[in-house]
Amino acid sequence: MKKYAIIVAGGAGSRMGTPVPKQFLPLNGRPVLWYTLDTFLGVFPDLEIILVVPASHVEVARALASGFAGAGRIRLVSGGNTRFHSVRNGLELAVGESVIFVHDGVRCLVSRELIQRCYEQAVRLGSAIPVTGSGDSVRLVGEEGSSKPIDRDRIKLVQTPQTFRSDILLEAYKTDHQEAFTDDATVVEVAGHAVHLIEGEVNNIKITTPADLVIAGQLLAERMG
Amino acid sequence: MKKYAIIVAGGAGSRMGTPVPKQFLPLNGRPVLWYTLDTFLGVFPDLEIILVVPASHVEVARALASGFAGAGRIRLVSGGNTRFHSVRNGLELAVGESVIFVHDGVRCLVSRELIQRCYEQAVRLGSAIPVTGSGDSVRLVGEEGSSKPIDRDRIKLVQTPQTFRSDILLEAYKTDHQEAFTDDATVVEVAGHAVHLIEGEVNNIKITTPADLVIAGQLLAERMG
Repeated sequence: MKKYAIIVAGGAGSRMGTPVPKQFLPLNGRPVLWYTLDTFLGVFPDLEIILVVPASHVEVARALASGFAGAGRIRLVSGGNTRFHSVRNGLELAVGESVIFVHDGVRCLVSRELIQRCYEQAVRLGSAIPVTGSGDSVRLVGEEGSSKPIDRDRIKLVQTPQTFRSDILLEAYKTDHQEAFTDDATVVEVAGHAVHLIEGEVNNIKITTPADLVIAGQLLAERMG
Repeated sequence: MKKYAIIVAGGAGSRMGTPVPKQFLPLNGRPVLWYTLDTFLGVFPDLEIILVVPASHVEVARALASGFAGAGRIRLVSGGNTRFHSVRNGLELAVGESVIFVHDGVRCLVSRELIQRCYEQAVRLGSAIPVTGSGDSVRLVGEEGSSKPIDRDRIKLVQTPQTFRSDILLEAYKTDHQEAFTDDATVVEVAGHAVHLIEGEVNNIKITTPADLVIAGQLLAERMG
């Protein structure tokens, strides 16, 4: 089946404390986003990437994309005000029956194997939302700072690529934005579909702090051997 | 006030896939546990460490402890069948009014600053449970694999050192073991006390997998400059 990957790299990266958005920061000599693009281009020869970046960074992203042998499979779209709007902008370029991955550009350690597993489950069940368990105990905070323990086996931390059959995702994104939309799974659920979880990867971290960048650099160096 | 740190290093480390318990694995040339001991010894000159290790590793731990200038402040205790029993064994050596830290031996990246903050809050409020937020979206899993989104701002991941005034902790640990005891905070709550959270540290990770060991090595190297 046809495959699209919406790579969302629209963030301004304010938590990183640098003027460069985190998806463009250097990691072992290449921008963070380079690794994400390289992995998605490599996993399926017929996959098309729809790369959503801030309007201010379209030219930088174009230069980055042009360096790939598969550059013809990367299209650029400007981001919106929220993640929801950014994804919706990207979805306008996805036509026909397909499987659509929606992936955080800053999760540059995602493996081909996870992408492949998400694809297979989405074909079979309609969706694949990668999640991991918490290694720490977990507490649920209530009003006025009170908190109580919650069974950590019931808590799942949600990653990307959140993966869907196109009919489900495209229809779900026809709605208006809601506060409750924290990711694509919630958009699809509000549209009335169940979502199906799949085991994610502990190393599939989201780079949001300088410490994350250090960790990612080390993990990539180990992977390259 | 007098200070005790119960360092719990009783685990067998089955997830690491090595015959050596993870707290004794080498990290940049020294055992994981060395860094934990070094940090606690350094933060308060009058702090005493009660180190709980598997009975099979008392001699190894003794050799490790003897290398510190502060070796006279480290006492060794054999672990029990569960974390609860290990902590309770350690608490038998804590006498008099004090503040007691209970810390995972494998959280070797804990900072002196966090220990200091936990101490101050425990003196003032009776307890300090360090927690961090989740950078990922969070889902709550129900029966038969169903799941639903939960506001990630309400979810806190619990770290150590869980820190208490001795009167609260010693009394709470007089109970029998319960399944619900996942950490010291839950033991204290079951005894009828509220616990007070405090902001933890993203780098204060628990080393449970080979990838964690790589991450910790890199973060330690950065810290040492």
